[in-house]
Amino acid sequence: MLLQFAEHTSDSVMTPARISPQRLRQRMEHLGTIGRGDSGGISRPPFSPAHVEAVHLVAQMMHEAGLDPGVDEFGNLIGHGAGEDGPVLLAGSHLDTVPNGGMFDGALGVVAAVEAAQALQEAGRHLRHRLVVIAFADEEGYAFDVGTLSSRALVGEIPRSRFGTLRDRSGQSLEAYLTARAHGLPLARIPERTAAYVELHVEQGPVLERMGRAVAAVESITGILRTTVTFEGRAAHAGTTPMTTRADALVGAAELVMAVRELALQHKDRAVGTVGRLSVHPGATNVIPGRVDLSVEFRSPDERELDDLRVAVEQRSQTIAGQQGLRVTVGSWDRSPPVPMDPGVRDAVVRALQTCGQPALTLLSWAGHDAGVLARYIPAGMIFVASTAGLSHSPQEHTPWEIAAIGTQVLVETLMILDNSNDPTRRLPVAYATR
Amino acid sequence: MLLQFAEHTSDSVMTPARISPQRLRQRMEHLGTIGRGDSGGISRPPFSPAHVEAVHLVAQMMHEAGLDPGVDEFGNLIGHGAGEDGPVLLAGSHLDTVPNGGMFDGALGVVAAVEAAQALQEAGRHLRHRLVVIAFADEEGYAFDVGTLSSRALVGEIPRSRFGTLRDRSGQSLEAYLTARAHGLPLARIPERTAAYVELHVEQGPVLERMGRAVAAVESITGILRTTVTFEGRAAHAGTTPMTTRADALVGAAELVMAVRELALQHKDRAVGTVGRLSVHPGATNVIPGRVDLSVEFRSPDERELDDLRVAVEQRSQTIAGQQGLRVTVGSWDRSPPVPMDPGVRDAVVRALQTCGQPALTLLSWAGHDAGVLARYIPAGMIFVASTAGLSHSPQEHTPWEIAAIGTQVLVETLMILDNSNDPTRRLPVAYATR
Repeated sequence: MLLQFAEHTSDSVMTPARISPQRLRQRMEHLGTIGRGDSGGISRPPFSPAHVEAVHLVAQMMHEAGLDPGVDEFGNLIGHGAGEDGPVLLAGSHLDTVPNGGMFDGALGVVAAVEAAQALQEAGRHLRHRLVVIAFADEEGYAFDVGTLSSRALVGEIPRSRFGTLRDRSGQSLEAYLTARAHGLPLARIPERTAAYVELHVEQGPVLERMGRAVAAVESITGILRTTVTFEGRAAHAGTTPMTTRADALVGAAELVMAVRELALQHKDRAVGTVGRLSVHPGATNVIPGRVDLSVEFRSPDERELDDLRVAVEQRSQTIAGQQGLRVTVGSWDRSPPVPMDPGVRDAVVRALQTCGQPALTLLSWAGHDAGVLARYIPAGMIFVASTAGLSHSPQEHTPWEIAAIGTQVLVETLMILDNSNDPTRRLPVAYATR
Repeated sequence: MLLQFAEHTSDSVMTPARISPQRLRQRMEHLGTIGRGDSGGISRPPFSPAHVEAVHLVAQMMHEAGLDPGVDEFGNLIGHGAGEDGPVLLAGSHLDTVPNGGMFDGALGVVAAVEAAQALQEAGRHLRHRLVVIAFADEEGYAFDVGTLSSRALVGEIPRSRFGTLRDRSGQSLEAYLTARAHGLPLARIPERTAAYVELHVEQGPVLERMGRAVAAVESITGILRTTVTFEGRAAHAGTTPMTTRADALVGAAELVMAVRELALQHKDRAVGTVGRLSVHPGATNVIPGRVDLSVEFRSPDERELDDLRVAVEQRSQTIAGQQGLRVTVGSWDRSPPVPMDPGVRDAVVRALQTCGQPALTLLSWAGHDAGVLARYIPAGMIFVASTAGLSHSPQEHTPWEIAAIGTQVLVETLMILDNSNDPTRRLPVAYATR
């Protein structure tokens, strides 16, 4: 795949705002040393010493890019650009990682946003909107078992009253971490008046690479539907119980595992379905399984398709139970609805792609992101860059450096296009206690 | 089902040797109080206080039946009948139970053998062979993870050198238990010169009850083939990995679960197949399973059918792995070959059935028994009595008292028939250290 920068940026009468691929890579490699373990994987749980170190390093980068860094009451690193008071453009991602994760997930979006700010500054481009770069503290949700914790706390979706009871593996509460303010950086805030949020992120899947593409706009973040299904039969002697009189809970569960795959495949590229957990009771070689609990998860960008899948799994479970002489219980469904990206931001990314010589392309995001939280309140969109072999949450996570650079240039162009658009600014309901 | 005793025993010129159904039931109910838990289940691990108490109670019953009780070096309770030196007839079963098991499994065969001895004594029947009643200490194999431990130790199949390393959940070694000799009963031995061994046992399955029958002779103890199969795919994000690029180890495992059932069903009543254990790694709702380990067990009375099933599972596993893009490893096969019961003993049981007014019937035993161990050395056979609803290893385990009584009478008649037969006596290779 040969990838080259476009010859022209959007406005040819001014100095083009060109990012520095070398600086981007250097900064990413420096950041990628923080929290790195023996296996090469990165472990930066939110508020850990490694995370605090990463915040300080990125704050230094922000200084270099002409941004004024600080940390808000939720532990998010915020770099304010210079300029008039008024609605801002937000760009960024997150700095935490899963245990033994990769160096691109989250980090690339933060460093790219800093690089975009620096490229604009170096080209002397003064945007109408001030640029604010954000690095959310906890997106992965592994530490406190709440996904996109920091962005949801920011907009008040996680009430402050829960901060004392959310505890990480060490037993420390979120409240305690936030009170400690271990970063030692000045207090900062994300402005309420926000024109848009743009997040560059690695795809974490194989689609772009398989298409031979580098970058895409995100169309929508898929919805998720989850439940637990329990089959109950009769635990009995694996020798003395004839095949025809058995009520084997694992046989029922196995049929449902196959059905979940088959149902997802029927929806072509519009759904995925997974059984990730399955436990057998009593779980002895010579005892017919009496009970099996399994998780069922579906993802789709379309709420109606998710509904169809839910109904289909409920029906299949009953049919299987009837045929195998089992009882089945389908638990309540945990649902997070699909989140379409703002059409204005999406179109800005598509135009930016073309400006950078890249084919117009929109993709679905099959994983959750902070942009999905912010999109409920303000115009928000995402730029995906290709993940080598589709790997993520793994030490092998990688994005070729030239692709990272193209994505970052697309971010610069997107910010310039959004700066020129006249969409009404909406209010981000920031839940800061101090006014 | 109306069941009545036959009017005549085998030899009408003498006083018929009639068992006492009342005494049988009373003794069973008394024994059934030992080790009984709150749920009604019996827990008598070998060498536990409950087991020692049961040994003492049965020793007392042996006294009442004119048997001389003692315990051998392997912890087996042995009651010697009066009579000449010479080849003996052995009858009995085991006194241990699985955790939270039933009051009939093992116990009924022991109490029935004592009752048979007492019925013969009360009728003044002096057999040519002395009658020796045995209650094996550990048949279930739960305590030390070795099935039919006590009978296999008796014949030297478990070498004495392992006694120090076999430990139960409390960490106590078999050696320590045997050295303690907690029973406080005199030392006894099972004689080497043995004409036959007869074991009455509950069927533990539903076949007799479904046929409307009470008692049967056992034709053969089925062979068992066991292995562990491991499917390996790629653990990956359950959202970002398209269905068509997945290598989901659980999908492969589910297909094999179905195949094991289907293969066993193809063999009609000649085989059973079970997947009792299955574990998923990493086992998270939002991660595609990267590895699944599962147990596969087949039982059949026919060694060739077991071989066919082994080959079929190996082929299916490879086919499934190929189709799903997985690697598969079929572990080594643990095999215990089918054990046919001695035709002479089986025929004696069938004749005894008819003497007791019961239809001639032979069944397969789908579970292992001490009779299967002894059958490798001496003529051995079994009498099965019906299990209500086929339940065993459960507090609900039950055999109607009238059926228990018929089975015990069949045991009496079988012993008398065997006493009159002239089969050559073979040597039981008892592995006693003291000579």
